[in-house]
Amino acid sequence: MTDDPRLTRLAATLPSSVPFVGPEALQRLSGTTFAARLGANESGFGPSPFAIKVMQDAAAQAWMYADPESHDLRQALAAHHNIAAENIMIGEGIDTLLGLLVRLLIAQGDSVVTSAGAYPTFNYHVAGFGGTLHTVPYTGDHEDPSRLVAKARETDAKLIYIANPDNPMGTYHKGHVIERMVAEIPDDCLLILDEAYIELAPDAAVPALSPADPRVIRMRTFSKAYGMAGARVGYAVGAAPLIAAFNKVRNHFGMNRTSQLGALAALADIEHMNNVVSAAQKSRDQIAKIALDCRLTPIPSATNFVAVDCGHDAAFARKVVDELGKRGIFVRMPFVAPQNRCIRISCGPHSEMQLLAAALPNAIAAAHG
Amino acid sequence: MTDDPRLTRLAATLPSSVPFVGPEALQRLSGTTFAARLGANESGFGPSPFAIKVMQDAAAQAWMYADPESHDLRQALAAHHNIAAENIMIGEGIDTLLGLLVRLLIAQGDSVVTSAGAYPTFNYHVAGFGGTLHTVPYTGDHEDPSRLVAKARETDAKLIYIANPDNPMGTYHKGHVIERMVAEIPDDCLLILDEAYIELAPDAAVPALSPADPRVIRMRTFSKAYGMAGARVGYAVGAAPLIAAFNKVRNHFGMNRTSQLGALAALADIEHMNNVVSAAQKSRDQIAKIALDCRLTPIPSATNFVAVDCGHDAAFARKVVDELGKRGIFVRMPFVAPQNRCIRISCGPHSEMQLLAAALPNAIAAAHG
Repeated sequence: MTDDPRLTRLAATLPSSVPFVGPEALQRLSGTTFAARLGANESGFGPSPFAIKVMQDAAAQAWMYADPESHDLRQALAAHHNIAAENIMIGEGIDTLLGLLVRLLIAQGDSVVTSAGAYPTFNYHVAGFGGTLHTVPYTGDHEDPSRLVAKARETDAKLIYIANPDNPMGTYHKGHVIERMVAEIPDDCLLILDEAYIELAPDAAVPALSPADPRVIRMRTFSKAYGMAGARVGYAVGAAPLIAAFNKVRNHFGMNRTSQLGALAALADIEHMNNVVSAAQKSRDQIAKIALDCRLTPIPSATNFVAVDCGHDAAFARKVVDELGKRGIFVRMPFVAPQNRCIRISCGPHSEMQLLAAALPNAIAAAHG
Repeated sequence: MTDDPRLTRLAATLPSSVPFVGPEALQRLSGTTFAARLGANESGFGPSPFAIKVMQDAAAQAWMYADPESHDLRQALAAHHNIAAENIMIGEGIDTLLGLLVRLLIAQGDSVVTSAGAYPTFNYHVAGFGGTLHTVPYTGDHEDPSRLVAKARETDAKLIYIANPDNPMGTYHKGHVIERMVAEIPDDCLLILDEAYIELAPDAAVPALSPADPRVIRMRTFSKAYGMAGARVGYAVGAAPLIAAFNKVRNHFGMNRTSQLGALAALADIEHMNNVVSAAQKSRDQIAKIALDCRLTPIPSATNFVAVDCGHDAAFARKVVDELGKRGIFVRMPFVAPQNRCIRISCGPHSEMQLLAAALPNAIAAAHG
């Protein structure tokens, strides 16, 4: 082996990148610790107390591999959604499931459609398997189903990605809009409907789709409303042949045993979910008020974060993010214009909202500098 | 989308398979619970008590994603091995790291060399990325470095896989044999040295290799001696350019936060490691005695399991595995002749060894019956 690893032609073209810089890396760079962690759309309201207890009790059993079929969690999710277990695939978070799905469907040069500025990790996977990404702009801070479908038709795309509610803008479409999108997608194209934030959205955001519909695969997660991002549990809902195809390529023993058990407990804790949904609503209102007090414009959100329009360009929003960071507040911002006029602030407990309220006016003033 | 998902040409050829059936699936099939879990080379001696405590304390913080750089664990491992952090990549177990490595290096039709009957999950990844697998037989229940190298030369292989100590036979080569193997591998070929069981082997099994040597990448894990299989933490040690290449394709936010912290604590608990190593030694001796008492032949092992030669063919060994299963003892067996004349029994606490001692004579009798 020479000093340069003999990578595949495809791998050699890929950058060594990270879709997002973690807050820990930012802390190491600055030598400070964030007092408010409001940048990664994690849930500062935490996991279900029952899930915490179950995970604590399971720690001593970490010597055992997890059940590679995630049988119990799959059955519980099937009951929860009133669908069949054959329509559910458990994975190590949506990121992993997106990667596997792209690997199954996208060969070099295949077309994939998404919105400019939508989820970067999906784009990373498309690039990683040699797909060609085509984008359409957001329309009025919403992803645009009609344009996505038209672009897919134009490019003979195999995959369309849409998140509902959307990240990073927090906007949502009503379920019937998604249903119409599914009805209109081209033959031989699959819609990935990323519903990472769906538990936090109005009921009207949920489309009526058959889990057996071969035109769409839905992605759900325990990372957001369930407050278990660090536990890495997500799942896909789709037609049985597509769900079974994950068994061709997935890491069968990849699930964390403690997380499997924790997710099972979290799923059963309806009361905690209700508490989180109402705490997130309250926190969205707080973020909106804090933004308005600074003469910024909060964009109505159906998620556990709020995109706040800072009223200027990306350079200004970047300054606000940096100035908040200097004041111990970790937030992020969209990557692509025109969304990158905004900063994106995750919901969190009241104490962190107070820190945000104290820091934002000064950060804005400093950004105006 | 038609009912059949529009898979890539490669994905369409892959079987929907699982490299190993999990013990939970066997339990569901039989409706019984295993009293002794001795089939997956897990460590029934458990994780470090300090690691357990740390993981328990971290459970409530599962709402946060893990540091995508695994900075602290990487630094600790660098100090532990007295090497640079740039030579270490953390991943969700060796399985994940093997998959990423194959993806980086193997395009369709590229040659890969391994031993017939060595680690099936590696073969699964090679098939999954379209590689062509070439195998050489074991020699005297050892993987055969000379034949592996010769086959790599003959097939212009990009990768050679060897485990030292070996799984499923438990045998090992001395470090200087591996060093000679590295010296002899063809140009442009990379050796994967899977050292999953190395902490349990004699010191003499550890080769003196520079972490910066571009001809070899070593795989280590917290799943075996560290007793944290369910936590999914492994790492690769290799030349910096190859280690950096993982950043092209890995799931940056794939690590479990609790597991990262647990591994850090486990690494520091030298006393627990020493206890496990001596408990495994004792258990190997117990398994050997139990086997000999049944007129079976234990193969000397440098791991936390013992391959036991049942003295007949694969069909007989399969019967012994099944009869042990009926008696509540979960064990596995090698997949390929001539190793599949054996059953493979993991080390475990004394109570499980007693169950094994009670069940094996009856299982053998029933298998003969």
